[in-house]
Amino acid sequence: MSSTSKLNKLIADIASNSKKASTILATSSTSDKNAALNKMAEKLVQNEEFLLSENQIDVTEAKSKGTSSALIDRLKLSPERIKSIAEGLTEVSKLNDPVGEVIKMWKRPNGLMVGKKRIPLGVIGIIYESRPNVTADAAGLCLKSGNSVILRGGSETINSNLAIAKLLRESLEECNLPADAIQVIPVTDRELILDMLKLEDDIDLIIPRGGEGLIRFVSENSRIPVLKHYKGVCHVYVDKYADIKMATNICINAKVQRPGVCNAMETMLVNKDIAKKFLPVIEKEMSDSGVELKGCENTLKYLPNIQKAQEGDWREEYLDLILNIKIVDDLDDAIDHIHKYGSMHTESIVTENYENSQKFIESVNSSAVLVNASTRFNDGFQLGLGAEIGISTSKLHAFGPMGLEELTSSKFIIYGNGQIRN
Amino acid sequence: MSSTSKLNKLIADIASNSKKASTILATSSTSDKNAALNKMAEKLVQNEEFLLSENQIDVTEAKSKGTSSALIDRLKLSPERIKSIAEGLTEVSKLNDPVGEVIKMWKRPNGLMVGKKRIPLGVIGIIYESRPNVTADAAGLCLKSGNSVILRGGSETINSNLAIAKLLRESLEECNLPADAIQVIPVTDRELILDMLKLEDDIDLIIPRGGEGLIRFVSENSRIPVLKHYKGVCHVYVDKYADIKMATNICINAKVQRPGVCNAMETMLVNKDIAKKFLPVIEKEMSDSGVELKGCENTLKYLPNIQKAQEGDWREEYLDLILNIKIVDDLDDAIDHIHKYGSMHTESIVTENYENSQKFIESVNSSAVLVNASTRFNDGFQLGLGAEIGISTSKLHAFGPMGLEELTSSKFIIYGNGQIRN
Repeated sequence: MSSTSKLNKLIADIASNSKKASTILATSSTSDKNAALNKMAEKLVQNEEFLLSENQIDVTEAKSKGTSSALIDRLKLSPERIKSIAEGLTEVSKLNDPVGEVIKMWKRPNGLMVGKKRIPLGVIGIIYESRPNVTADAAGLCLKSGNSVILRGGSETINSNLAIAKLLRESLEECNLPADAIQVIPVTDRELILDMLKLEDDIDLIIPRGGEGLIRFVSENSRIPVLKHYKGVCHVYVDKYADIKMATNICINAKVQRPGVCNAMETMLVNKDIAKKFLPVIEKEMSDSGVELKGCENTLKYLPNIQKAQEGDWREEYLDLILNIKIVDDLDDAIDHIHKYGSMHTESIVTENYENSQKFIESVNSSAVLVNASTRFNDGFQLGLGAEIGISTSKLHAFGPMGLEELTSSKFIIYGNGQIRN
Repeated sequence: MSSTSKLNKLIADIASNSKKASTILATSSTSDKNAALNKMAEKLVQNEEFLLSENQIDVTEAKSKGTSSALIDRLKLSPERIKSIAEGLTEVSKLNDPVGEVIKMWKRPNGLMVGKKRIPLGVIGIIYESRPNVTADAAGLCLKSGNSVILRGGSETINSNLAIAKLLRESLEECNLPADAIQVIPVTDRELILDMLKLEDDIDLIIPRGGEGLIRFVSENSRIPVLKHYKGVCHVYVDKYADIKMATNICINAKVQRPGVCNAMETMLVNKDIAKKFLPVIEKEMSDSGVELKGCENTLKYLPNIQKAQEGDWREEYLDLILNIKIVDDLDDAIDHIHKYGSMHTESIVTENYENSQKFIESVNSSAVLVNASTRFNDGFQLGLGAEIGISTSKLHAFGPMGLEELTSSKFIIYGNGQIRN
């Protein structure tokens, strides 16, 4: 057998075993799933030494390849990180089980009772890079929502991922659940991803987690539905009717509290009638926080010492302490800018005006639209979903943070007493 | 410019104009959309002669190519058919507008009010064959749900489709809505579908309607999410505890009432303990209705005059007066058969036993699972969705009949009073 067809068979077998496990998991009880989650948490902590020594292989390998220290930090496990992964699994065990919930039910004129009942999706493939915690986090959320998971992490953490998966699988077995509900692909050849993306009969959903390159590669080559998370170019619009103090707090928080994440603000839009009052205040605060400012031509009239923003800057996801500022004529102008340059991720308006707040909520079609709050709240935990497996920036199936419910589908259940169609 | 790049530009322009129209449509009022739907209905009836003469070009062309009379019947318009298309549009105007509904809303500990609000998907591409009524039906449902639509019908009805679209677009304009919200692609080269399936930035969803070949072609080549409707291999399981009379009525209805559709029964599973009593009854009824029976080996012991079913038959979507019969040991055996051979479309159990009914509902993960009712009820109108643009047999986004709600997504709306993250 050629190495290509061996790989092909390997991934086909993994997917087919995953599908089989998923049919068992679909009707497993909540208490069995919770028991397994708690067992996993326990085992990860108990086997700290094993995990650290397997992780050390990855770290040594990465160092020998001259990997940057920032990247090595991302893939390194520590007793604290293992504890935090374990706590994450315990938290998931405490969340409501979405499976089995009847979302609504109604009666038809012929007496049929029709309902929509939540069911698992089946098999979820996660393709990710670097962080070994994703292995346990994603496996926990998939298990709780009744789905099998196939994990394809990067080559740089393959030993850590396999070690974590070994413990998770043992936990499943000890709780009478099928071990194959959680599988890490043991080889990291890139061709194998292409093979995996063709298995639409066995895999129901692919979630890529990583850079834009990975996500584009996956969505361009997949026959399986993909939940994409592209970049977040988030805006705060400071309306003419904004409270200056509130606008300052929100803008500083949106930019500075954690600049390297997708829901941080990248461009601040300022109404022309408040610019004179607001811009000097925010310039001082941003400078004090070490933020580099880039402004449109009109902004430069008020803030002559900052850089001029270039056309390409308005589309930039800096993920850093850099902020674009643009003066807009009015709310419509702000909305037009967001439609043209935004990424449909997160946008916020700061205003005391009722009509403008409603119009902003209505007209901006981003995954989260806020009034008088920081963009940083667009996050599954912050919005109350309990957990998050990613943030979808496309509208099919899920838009915005994806919690356990977003890992389910629903079927129609219909109770009759002999009805037939005329 | 080469003909390939001309096609490429044509579809790119259509998609980009569709996207622009969709942003206007997203915030159009329900009354404007309803006015347009009613205007469309009016115009189609008023322009009957124009529609019939354009349709005649397609019919003549089809005849000259030696097209089968069955196919010609599908593409032919008549005054009655035009009236029925118009009535369909009027009906859609009476349905609730799904856009703008806040599905739920909750309060976070920090005082943020978080809600999920329905929004249109954006631009929907429909790729279909033969029937010109799809042009108006799909356009009506997309308009009501606030979506632009790009319609790519078959070459055999291109003149009819363009004629219908002309009237629909005029109606939009007369109601101050953007004409480009409804576009029929004026050329029918197959390469153009490939170009269309790559426009993931402008098109949000593709719905193929037609044979399995078309659907596979689309889903294997699309970078845009696809809602698929593969075949319906539907089962009725006649339990040991079934009422014989009810089981007979349901099975006859499921097979005979309209055998050529996807929710008709293709295989009847019969519990071994009821076989002796039930099979002779159903054989007579099915024969009286002209149904050809194929049975498993055990069935042949009771019904020696019928054909033996072959392994391939259990996966067959006959869409005809042919029925497989299999005797099963018990409910588990029936469920195993459905998992192995079914298409996750529609399955029904006939039983008077409470536990078996609940287990069937729980264990069978088809888009519709029924107790004591005909499979023919798996239909958007019958289930009370008001309309139907297709039946999804994959679980992402929608599973089962898709009504107006399934043509929407939702965004998070968040009302604060100055909240920032710690």
